[in-house]
Order: sequence, then structure tokens, then C-alpha cells
Amino acid sequence: MIVRPLQHWLRMLFVWRGSVLGRILPQLAVVILWSIAVALAQGTVLGFKIDLTIAPFTLLGIALAIFLGFSNSVSYDRYWEARKLWGALLNDSRSLTRQIMSLADVDATVQRRFAYGAIAFVHALKHQLRNTSAEADLARCLPPEWQARVQSAQFKPAVILVLLADVVRELRQNGQLSPMLVPAIDRHLSQLNEALGGCERIAGTPIPFAYSVILHRTAYLYSFLLPFGLVHSIGLLTPLIVAFISYTFFALEALAEEIQEPFGTEPNDLALKAMSVMIESTVREMLGETDLPEAVAAKNYILS
Amino acid sequence: MIVRPLQHWLRMLFVWRGSVLGRILPQLAVVILWSIAVALAQGTVLGFKIDLTIAPFTLLGIALAIFLGFSNSVSYDRYWEARKLWGALLNDSRSLTRQIMSLADVDATVQRRFAYGAIAFVHALKHQLRNTSAEADLARCLPPEWQARVQSAQFKPAVILVLLADVVRELRQNGQLSPMLVPAIDRHLSQLNEALGGCERIAGTPIPFAYSVILHRTAYLYSFLLPFGLVHSIGLLTPLIVAFISYTFFALEALAEEIQEPFGTEPNDLALKAMSVMIESTVREMLGETDLPEAVAAKNYILS
Amino acid sequence: MIVRPLQHWLRMLFVWRGSVLGRILPQLAVVILWSIAVALAQGTVLGFKIDLTIAPFTLLGIALAIFLGFSNSVSYDRYWEARKLWGALLNDSRSLTRQIMSLADVDATVQRRFAYGAIAFVHALKHQLRNTSAEADLARCLPPEWQARVQSAQFKPAVILVLLADVVRELRQNGQLSPMLVPAIDRHLSQLNEALGGCERIAGTPIPFAYSVILHRTAYLYSFLLPFGLVHSIGLLTPLIVAFISYTFFALEALAEEIQEPFGTEPNDLALKAMSVMIESTVREMLGETDLPEAVAAKNYILS
Amino acid sequence: MIVRPLQHWLRMLFVWRGSVLGRILPQLAVVILWSIAVALAQGTVLGFKIDLTIAPFTLLGIALAIFLGFSNSVSYDRYWEARKLWGALLNDSRSLTRQIMSLADVDATVQRRFAYGAIAFVHALKHQLRNTSAEADLARCLPPEWQARVQSAQFKPAVILVLLADVVRELRQNGQLSPMLVPAIDRHLSQLNEALGGCERIAGTPIPFAYSVILHRTAYLYSFLLPFGLVHSIGLLTPLIVAFISYTFFALEALAEEIQEPFGTEPNDLALKAMSVMIESTVREMLGETDLPEAVAAKNYILS
Amino acid sequence: MIVRPLQHWLRMLFVWRGSVLGRILPQLAVVILWSIAVALAQGTVLGFKIDLTIAPFTLLGIALAIFLGFSNSVSYDRYWEARKLWGALLNDSRSLTRQIMSLADVDATVQRRFAYGAIAFVHALKHQLRNTSAEADLARCLPPEWQARVQSAQFKPAVILVLLADVVRELRQNGQLSPMLVPAIDRHLSQLNEALGGCERIAGTPIPFAYSVILHRTAYLYSFLLPFGLVHSIGLLTPLIVAFISYTFFALEALAEEIQEPFGTEPNDLALKAMSVMIESTVREMLGETDLPEAVAAKNYILS
Repeated sequence: MIVRPLQHWLRMLFVWRGSVLGRILPQLAVVILWSIAVALAQGTVLGFKIDLTIAPFTLLGIALAIFLGFSNSVSYDRYWEARKLWGALLNDSRSLTRQIMSLADVDATVQRRFAYGAIAFVHALKHQLRNTSAEADLARCLPPEWQARVQSAQFKPAVILVLLADVVRELRQNGQLSPMLVPAIDRHLSQLNEALGGCERIAGTPIPFAYSVILHRTAYLYSFLLPFGLVHSIGLLTPLIVAFISYTFFALEALAEEIQEPFGTEPNDLALKAMSVMIESTVREMLGETDLPEAVAAKNYILS
Repeated sequence: MIVRPLQHWLRMLFVWRGSVLGRILPQLAVVILWSIAVALAQGTVLGFKIDLTIAPFTLLGIALAIFLGFSNSVSYDRYWEARKLWGALLNDSRSLTRQIMSLADVDATVQRRFAYGAIAFVHALKHQLRNTSAEADLARCLPPEWQARVQSAQFKPAVILVLLADVVRELRQNGQLSPMLVPAIDRHLSQLNEALGGCERIAGTPIPFAYSVILHRTAYLYSFLLPFGLVHSIGLLTPLIVAFISYTFFALEALAEEIQEPFGTEPNDLALKAMSVMIESTVREMLGETDLPEAVAAKNYILS
Repeated sequence: MIVRPLQHWLRMLFVWRGSVLGRILPQLAVVILWSIAVALAQGTVLGFKIDLTIAPFTLLGIALAIFLGFSNSVSYDRYWEARKLWGALLNDSRSLTRQIMSLADVDATVQRRFAYGAIAFVHALKHQLRNTSAEADLARCLPPEWQARVQSAQFKPAVILVLLADVVRELRQNGQLSPMLVPAIDRHLSQLNEALGGCERIAGTPIPFAYSVILHRTAYLYSFLLPFGLVHSIGLLTPLIVAFISYTFFALEALAEEIQEPFGTEPNDLALKAMSVMIESTVREMLGETDLPEAVAAKNYILS
Repeated sequence: MIVRPLQHWLRMLFVWRGSVLGRILPQLAVVILWSIAVALAQGTVLGFKIDLTIAPFTLLGIALAIFLGFSNSVSYDRYWEARKLWGALLNDSRSLTRQIMSLADVDATVQRRFAYGAIAFVHALKHQLRNTSAEADLARCLPPEWQARVQSAQFKPAVILVLLADVVRELRQNGQLSPMLVPAIDRHLSQLNEALGGCERIAGTPIPFAYSVILHRTAYLYSFLLPFGLVHSIGLLTPLIVAFISYTFFALEALAEEIQEPFGTEPNDLALKAMSVMIESTVREMLGETDLPEAVAAKNYILS
Repeated sequence: MIVRPLQHWLRMLFVWRGSVLGRILPQLAVVILWSIAVALAQGTVLGFKIDLTIAPFTLLGIALAIFLGFSNSVSYDRYWEARKLWGALLNDSRSLTRQIMSLADVDATVQRRFAYGAIAFVHALKHQLRNTSAEADLARCLPPEWQARVQSAQFKPAVILVLLADVVRELRQNGQLSPMLVPAIDRHLSQLNEALGGCERIAGTPIPFAYSVILHRTAYLYSFLLPFGLVHSIGLLTPLIVAFISYTFFALEALAEEIQEPFGTEPNDLALKAMSVMIESTVREMLGETDLPEAVAAKNYILS
């Protein structure tokens, strides 16, 4: 995630970091060179003069803008839903911590064990979504007797929930937690479980591939034909307008693709690492700890 | 569902598998041939020169794009809601498994029986939505005494829920499950039931038929009249632009139709089979099993 | 509801049943005749030549398309919300049936009485929404001692819920239903109640009347002025384009009006009758009955 | 709320009541007179010929239509959310009535007292939203010992909820209501409370003022400049097109403003009075009363 | 938040306070001066005549309007979700107050302590979101023994929830609150917690930075090139149209940026201070207090 204050309107025009310009530079260069060639040849290819006039491009350009608008709206919804799911992780970790402290009649050891289990859940999910190794974080947060089972599991966070529920069962059987209060805790375990399933859903189900193909083709074909629509009315200024229009369309398409998979590590993706450290901090603060982990800092304005 | 990493921008232009090009090729060919004929005849039909000018087509094309945008937005919402309902199946199967292990005081046999009942529910729903035979999956997952009743039922998943609720009743009456904890389990049975009803709703209620008719007619009529709007300004280049515009409109219409019934077996539909195997895996892993079924692999990038 | 498989793209162009063409034919005919008259008179009215040029119509046509898109989106949301509410009726009837069988310790007579009460609720709501007589269905589903009170009531489904809650009270007072389990059943009674209120809301609150007026006026005025914008550039072809554009706008406006009141009996409205029979079937199958009512069949592709 | 059946397409064009024409007539008249003046002067002001050409107006008109579409969509969402909140009032009043009859072991007096408390809540909210005196309705529905406290309160409905909760506390302490059933009733009190808060939110938070200003300015400036864009191509017909376009934009802006504050008493606002009488009717019918209040009738098609 | 009644349509055109004109005046001035220069030079730069024609600007202007529409829609959704979260704070504070009075068997001192804890939560969240010191408000609302722990915490509102849950635990252990009723209160603590997490989410996750960059660049580049598209057809009137179009685009962009961070102190942001005082008032009125704090008054139409 890019954390950069909005700047003076003038400087904003020349921002490099945080824009997607880097990603689309090659294809933008190709299109511009192509339009320069068309402009120099005055729209003539192999001796044939090709004049497409601007009218069909107005129509198609607006249609393309409408579809790009739809596509960005879908991508942003995925991004924002993913952010909400991580918000739910925060909320439910806090609620479970509050509940183990308030509803059960247990000492700080059990409270800590349970709350750190929730922290381990969050870290495990982060590693599952980013395909990184959860080993270090699990070793830090889970009691030794749980680690083997979780480490060997395919769906680690789901197994952690089984173990947390096991704690609840023991407390209930020991009489340290009234059966009347169990459903309240169980409800938040179910909600953690829903946040897990929701993240798996977004990570595992891309926007239908055919949408990407159709939009991509239309945007690129459009940009390559556009010079023939402009060259006969604006001549050598063609590359300027083609560059402007292509930039807008390519950039919006690239951004839509970047944020539709919000769990990755591209600049505009969600800061899973920073969020999981923040969850760890607040949960541990609720337990009364004071040596909280330091918040993740942004590097070059990018929070990972 | 098509699982294909987004590719280099250049290769993306020539992707065949996963695009809907195959579905719209016949009508696209007809439109292109028609526009070639119009171009060669210079817009003259039976001696009458037909010049519609481009202006009405700009207006209508943009209107059409707006309606296609609306239609795609509705179709995608159905697709995504269907995906969420299958996400709920995953979440509730996991939660019920966690609950039978944590809330009830039962041995592994009963846990297994209950959790496999949830797995059977998921498979039965998949078969109901795709009109395939649930027999093999039910025989694998359900105890023999349940099979006859479920097999003969018209609404199989609904009957499985009755049988799962029967287990809950027995446990309560045996004293193995406190009545204070029953509502927590019952809530997830209701949620499975809601996911079932939601899938039946999407499968049984298409987008109002008249929408499909109006959009279809407008898109095709538009494409057939378009050559007469272009031929007098761009002459022999008419088929190029007609092909481009028709491709965009036909492809978006075809895709909207494909994903609005997301439970089918077309390439862009949901991967019900892969998802139900995944649910089976994670539930069985939670039970402590280790011989999990293998994940369904994509064939030609398509996950069924 | 029209249940008609999507057809070959060519046949789809000439579908009559299920399109809204029938509804808009008179006004479409008037507009076409008018545009023929204008075309023959070459845009001259009472000796004055009226040339509006196409430009303002492009602008207004696109604006109109945007507002029609908004209007259709609102109408479709009402339609889909109504469908979801009927989905909730299915879900909650099933859940209540499951609960009376699983949570209460009662014999089949009480189970049947309660579950049939839920069925009666659904039929009563259908009759309330369509202004038809609920007498036959109520006589079939309710015990005689309830019928008088329900029949004489102004809000029949609301009174049925009172009677169902009365059964719950009796079971609780008899000790056949633990008070710990009552809230679970009560929750589904509340949800049936919400579905009832939701249907009453949609049925009783139309889209603000002024929207219909503004859109209607703009669409018709547009169609009547359009010939003067086209006749000087495309002459005798004017009626063709006017017919095409008017068809699209009138059809979308008519459809938006049809589905915004989704409980009626027009072709694109919801199939309340088929759905209530389906709910009756599945509930009775859950009770173990085998002589289920036959599913309602479509007549001329229309399911009522 | 305007309750008027949709009429014959021809009559619909000349409807006066229920349209917003009355509200925008003055400014529409000014714009039309201005455009007549411009047309007569052939676009010349103080000797300078002002020709803006139609092109910038096409662009700006479409942009304006997009923003008006956004604005109407936001306003309608507020309107519909407000309607849903009043639907929740109906649902929760009915549910609370059902619960006091089914969950508590009390006689009709207490039932009546509690249910009438819910009715009083609804009336009090209506009066709060419309700034009218709740005195008569409260005197009719509340027991004398509650009236003083409610009347003197700043947030009357919130205080009524405290009093209803007080009844629940007494019943629990008397043993007439099992503590296991209290949460079910308490949940609906919380939901009434949420409906209250939701209405206060909509009533107290307008759409950001700057939106209204930007849209208003753009729409009016556009209409005043438009004649200079049209007069050189369509001459004396300018006022006709200006009137048409201005009517559409002004009317949509006026309607968006009218329904964004849906609790007022303008024609297209919600019929709070009719709804609160309906809630009173159905609740009293559930209690077994038969002398129900008469439904509010529409005056000149307007339901207040 | 700007609280200003909508005014006469004529005066509305000249409103200064509450519009965003102040924010965009510098850049608007630059664009207007630039377009005057271009108009005076008749589109000639360094001897080269630059004529871009209006056509590409129509296309790009509409595309820009579509993206601005998307951007405003996203910003407004953030604004409205933030408002809803603050509505949840109101609802849950009221519900917790009602519950401590109705569900627990405690005297006014405990009621007051608990309800004031909820008030402190709201104030603490306001200060966290606006980066101001919570000290005075906390000292006013919290008992001395809680203040040290809350003051030293990094996430103050989360710690207040732990302390409120502690009260619930004590009451349960003392027998002043039945364990059957604890979950009802705990649920509202969880909801307060969700409102907290939701506000942190909106405050901590801006709209992807690249969107702001793309829109900003497109809007400004557009405005600077526009004079070259207009000057050859409307000459000296160019600055007028450029000013009009730039105003619309700049103003909508500026407003979208202002309300996307709704917790700030800019004129169109949410009135956190007024809302937290209102919550304090109603909660204290529910407790029976009469010396309620005065409502925050608007200064120059602005409510902070």
C-alpha cells in the first residue's frame, strides 16, 4: 500500500513512485513510436492511404471508458472487500481477547495462550495468502505441542481454529467457562473462520479471464488504430494525443489488474505485513503487555 | 473457471483459450462478410444508395455500451453472489466440524459421521445444480441407513440437513450436547440452508428474459446497419472497424450470458467440482485425517 | 417469469413471446408513422422547414441512456430484492421445519401442524401480494380452529405468525421445548416476519412517481423530435433509424416499469405461484411425506 | 408519497400532479425567455457575435448527465434506505408484539402496555423527524406514569426504549419472563434502536453541500450558455431544444434534492403518517383488537 | 459538515462558503490565464500553429467524466460508510446503556460508570481519528483508577472496551448479572469494537494512490491542452469554455479528495465533535440526567 500524502497539485503531475507508469512504459513507448511512424507517413501504409476518421473512435473510446469504469469498479470492490476481511481479523482478534479475559475464569497464562493463538491465525493467513513460510511466526506465537500439527497442515489457519476451539472445550469441561457463555466465543471463532474463507475466495477466484482478454484487446487495438483516425486532421500532433489517450487507458487497465489481486506484494496491494503486526500490537496491549512490536515503517512510501 | 496467469501484454492479444471468441465466431463472420459486401457495393442496395451517416451510430453505440455495462454488472453480481454462497458452504462446513469437535462430548465416530454429512451436503448441492448423479458421492460420505432416504428425495441437500439436525437432537437427548450449545450448531445448519436456498434462487431465476432479447436485438441490428453508416466516409476500411466494434459488443454480450448462469460447465463458470473437493479436504484435515483427496487440476487452464 | 432457454443468436432476433414488444407496439407505430410523415414532408411543417441537426440529439440521447440505465438498475434491484425475500421464505420455512423436528420433543402431528402453518404463511402472503382469495389454501393448510381468525384478519400472514408463536409458547409451557431452544425458533419467526415486511415495502412503495414522469416525457418527446434531426441528412431512411432508437428506449422503459412491481402477473414478474408450490413440496418432503404436489409448469414459456 | 397508477403512455406526457414541474417553472421560464432573446438577436450581444458551437456542449452535457446520474443514485439510495428503516420499524414492532405474547407469561394488560409502547415509539419518531408535536399520540398510547418523562425528553424515542426495557426487567424479576428468553426480546429492542439511529443519521447528515453547489452551478451555467451553442445552426428553433434539455436537467436536479431528505412533507417524500397508522393497525390486530384505525387515504394522489 | 439549507436557485449560483472554490482557485487561475494566452496567440506556439480539433477532447472529456464519476462514487461510499460507523457508535452506546439498566441488577452508580465508559469510548475514538489529546475528555468520563491505563495506551478505545468487559465480568461473578444475559451485552461490546475497527480501516487505508495520480494527471493535462482544441473554432471565447469545463472537473476532483478522508476537519468532513456531544447527551438523558451538554453549534455554517 502506498502511503503518501496528497501533494501540491503541481508536484502531483510529476510523481513517479506510486504511479503505475513504470508498468506500462514499454507498451506506451511502442504505441508512441508507432504513432510517430504513422504521422510521418501521413497515414499511408504500403502506398494505401488509410483514413479512419475520428468518429468511430469517439464511439469506441467512450464504450471502452464505460467498460474500463465497470472493470475498475469490480477490481476496487475486490480490493475493498479484502480490506474489510482484514478489518474483520482485527475486530475478531480483539473481541476474542476481550472475551477470554471477561467471560472465562482463567489466569493470565490461558488468556495469553488463547490470544496468541488468534495472533498466530492472522500471521498464518498472511503467509498462506503470500505463499511464504509461516514457520518463524508460528514458533513465536504457538505453544510447542500445537506447532507440529499446524506446521504439517495444508490449511494452517483452519487447524489453528480447531485448536482454539479445543481450548474452549477444555475450559467448559473444567468449569472455567459457563456453557451459557460458550456460544458468544464460538460466534467470533466462526467469524474468524468466515474472514479466512473470504480471503481464500478472493485469492482463488480471479475476475473471469475473458473480461481481462476482451478489455485488453479492445484497449490495445484501439490505441494502434487511433493514429489513422487522427493523422488526417491533426497531422504531426497525432503522437501527442495518442500518448495522452493511451496513457489513460493503459494505466487504468494496469491498475485494475494490480488491485484485483489485493494480497500480492505490488505497490498498490494491501499491507498485510503492517496490518498483522498492528493486530499483534493491539492484542498484546489488551493483555497488558508493554513491549509491543514496532509498527512496520513504509519504505519509499510503500507499506508491505 | 479459467486459471491462467495474466500474461505479457503482447501475448494477451492473441490468447485463444479462455476468450469467448470461439462462441461468437459464426455471427462475427456473418457480420464481417456482410460489411465486406456493403463496402464493395459502396453502400448501394438494389440500386438505392443508403447513407445513414455515422452520427446516429455514435449515439446508439454509446447507449448500447451503457446498457451492456448494466447487463455485465448484473451478470457479474450473480456470478460473484454465487461464489460467495459457495464460500459460505466452505465456512459453514468448517464451522460445523469445529463445533461438533468442541461443543459436543462425543467420540471420533460421531464427529466423523457429522462432518461427512456436511461434505455430502456440498456434493449433493453440486450435483443438484449441475443435474448429475449424486449417487457415488453420497454412497461414499453417508452412512448406509441415510442413503435410501436421501437418494429418493427430490431436494437432496434439504433432506441431508434434516438428518444432520437429527444427530443434534439425539446428542441433546443423550446428554452429550448441552441444550445451551444447540443453538450455536443450529445457526450454522440454518446458514448452510441459506446457502442452499441462495444457489437454488440463482439457478432458478434468470435475468428477465426481455433484457436478453432487447440487448441482443439492439447489438445485432446495430452491427448489421453499421456498414451503411461508415461506408461513405471510410470506404473499403469499413469491415475493419465493423469487425472491431462487433467483436467488442458480441463478446461482452456472450460473456454476460455465460457468467449469469454461473453453475454450468462453460469455461468461465464456477469450478464447483474443485471447490467441493477442497471443502472435503479441509474438513477431513480438521478431523485429523491425512489421506486427503488430491486437489482437482486444471485441464487446458480450465478448472471444472 | 419467463423460462426460456437462450436460443440461437439468429432466432433470438425474432422472438415474440417474452419480449415487451407487445406492450409498446401502439406507441412505436405512432412514432414510426409520424417519422414517415416527416420524412415525406422533408421536415417541413406548415411551410416552415425545421432542421434541428443531429448534434443536440446525440447529447440528449446519451443523457437519456444514462438515466434509463439508472432507472433499469433501480427496477432490477427491486426485482432482485423481491426474489431474495421469497428466497428467505423458502429458507425460513425449511429451517422452522427442521427446528420443530430437531429441537422440540413432539410427535408428528405437532410437527405437521407447525410446518403446515409455515406453508400457509407463504400462500397467504402470495394472495395478499396479488389481491387474490387465500381461502382455499388456508382451509387446506390450517387447523379449523385457526381459520376463522386468519380469514377475518386484514394482515393475514402477520396473524399466522402469532398463531405459530402460540404453538411455541404451548410447547415451552408443556415442557416439550426447552426455553434455551426457544430463541432459535423465535429467530426464524422474526425472519419470516422480516420477509413479510420486505414484500409489503416493495409492494407499497413505488419508485418516486416523478422519476417515471420525467423519463417518460424525455423518451417520448425525444422520439417525436428526432425525425427533424435526421431528415435533412438521411432523408427517407429517417423512419428506419427512428424506429430502431425508439424501440430501444421504449422497450427499456416498459421493461423497467414491468419489473419494478415484481409481484404482479405480467410475463416478466416473479413466479409467486410456482415458488409457493415448491416451498410446500420441500417442506412436506422434509416431514417425510411422499405425495408431494406437482411443480407448476410453464404455459407458453411463462411461469406464474 | 405519490400513489398514482402508471397511466396510458399518452396521458402520462401531460401529468401535472406528482411531477416536479411546479418547482422548476420559474427558472425554466427564465431560461426559455433568455434563449428566445438570444435567438432573436441571432447570438449577438452588444454587437459581438458569440458562437460557441455545439461541440463543447455535447461534451459537457454528457458529463453533466453522468454527474446527475451519480447524484440521483445517491439520493435514491438515501430514500430507499429511509424506507427500509421504516420497514424495520414495522418488522420489529410486530416481532416485539409476537414475543410479549409468546415468550412472557403475562395477561393482556401487560401485552397491551408493551405493544402500545412500540406504537408510541413509532409515532414519536415520526414527530421527531417532522418536527411536530408528539403530545396527542403519546397521550393516546402511553400509560400516564410514563408520559411526563417522555414528554420532557429531548430524544423521546430513545427514552421510550428505556421504559420498554424497564418492563422487560420487571417481568424478569417477577419470574414472568425466563432470563433465557430476555435476549430474544432485547435483540428487537436493539433493532428498534438501530432504526431510530438510522433515521437520525439520514435526517442529520445531508449530501455534502459542495456537491449540490457544483451540480447546481454546472446545470444552470450550461443552460444559460447553451443558446449560444445552438443559435447559429438551428436559429429560431433554439428555445425549443433549450427548453427540452433544461427541463430534463432541472427536473432531475430538483427531484434529487426532494428525495434526498425523505422525511419531509413534499409530494415525493415518504408517507410517514400512513406508515405509522398501518403499524398501529397491524400491531393492534395481532393483539386481537378489531376496532382498528382507518388507513390514511391519499389526497390528490398524495399520501402524507 | 456544512449545514446550510438549500437556497433559492439564483443565490445558490453565487455561494462561496461550503463550495470548494477556495481550494481550486490557484490552479483554475493558471488554466484561465494560460487559455487567454493561447487565445490571444491564436493557438500559435513558437511559430507553429497547433490545432488539435475538438473531437479528441469530446472523447477524452467523456472518459474523464466517467472516471470522475467512479472516483466520486468511491469517495462518497467511504464518507457514508464512515457516517454509518458513527451511527453505530450512537446505537451501541444507547443499547449498552439500556442493557446495563435493564439486564443487570445494579444501582445508579454502576449504571453511570458503565454508560460513561461508553461515552469515553466515543470521545477517545474521535481524538484518535483527529490526532488530538483525549486527556480532558477521559478525565471527565472515566473513574480515576482507569485513567492511567487508558492514557498510556496506544489504542485507547480498545483498552476502554477491555475495562467495560471487566465490569461485566465483575457483575457476573457477583451475581448481579445472570450469565444468560451476558452474551447480549457482550454482543454490543463486539459491535462497538467493529465500529472502532471500521473507523481505523477507513482512516488507515486511502484509495489506491495510483488512482489519484491518474485522475489528477488526466484532468490537468486535459485542461491545459483544451485551449488548442477550441481556439480555432471559437477564438476569443476559448477562456470562457475552458474555465467552465476546468471548474467542473477540478471541483469534482477536489471534493472527491476532501470527502474520501471523512474524519478530518475540512468543511465537508464529518462533524465528529457534534456527534460525540450528541451521543453524550442522549446517553445521559437515558440515565435520567437533566443537565445535558449543549449541542455544538455551527460556525459559518460549518459543524466540526
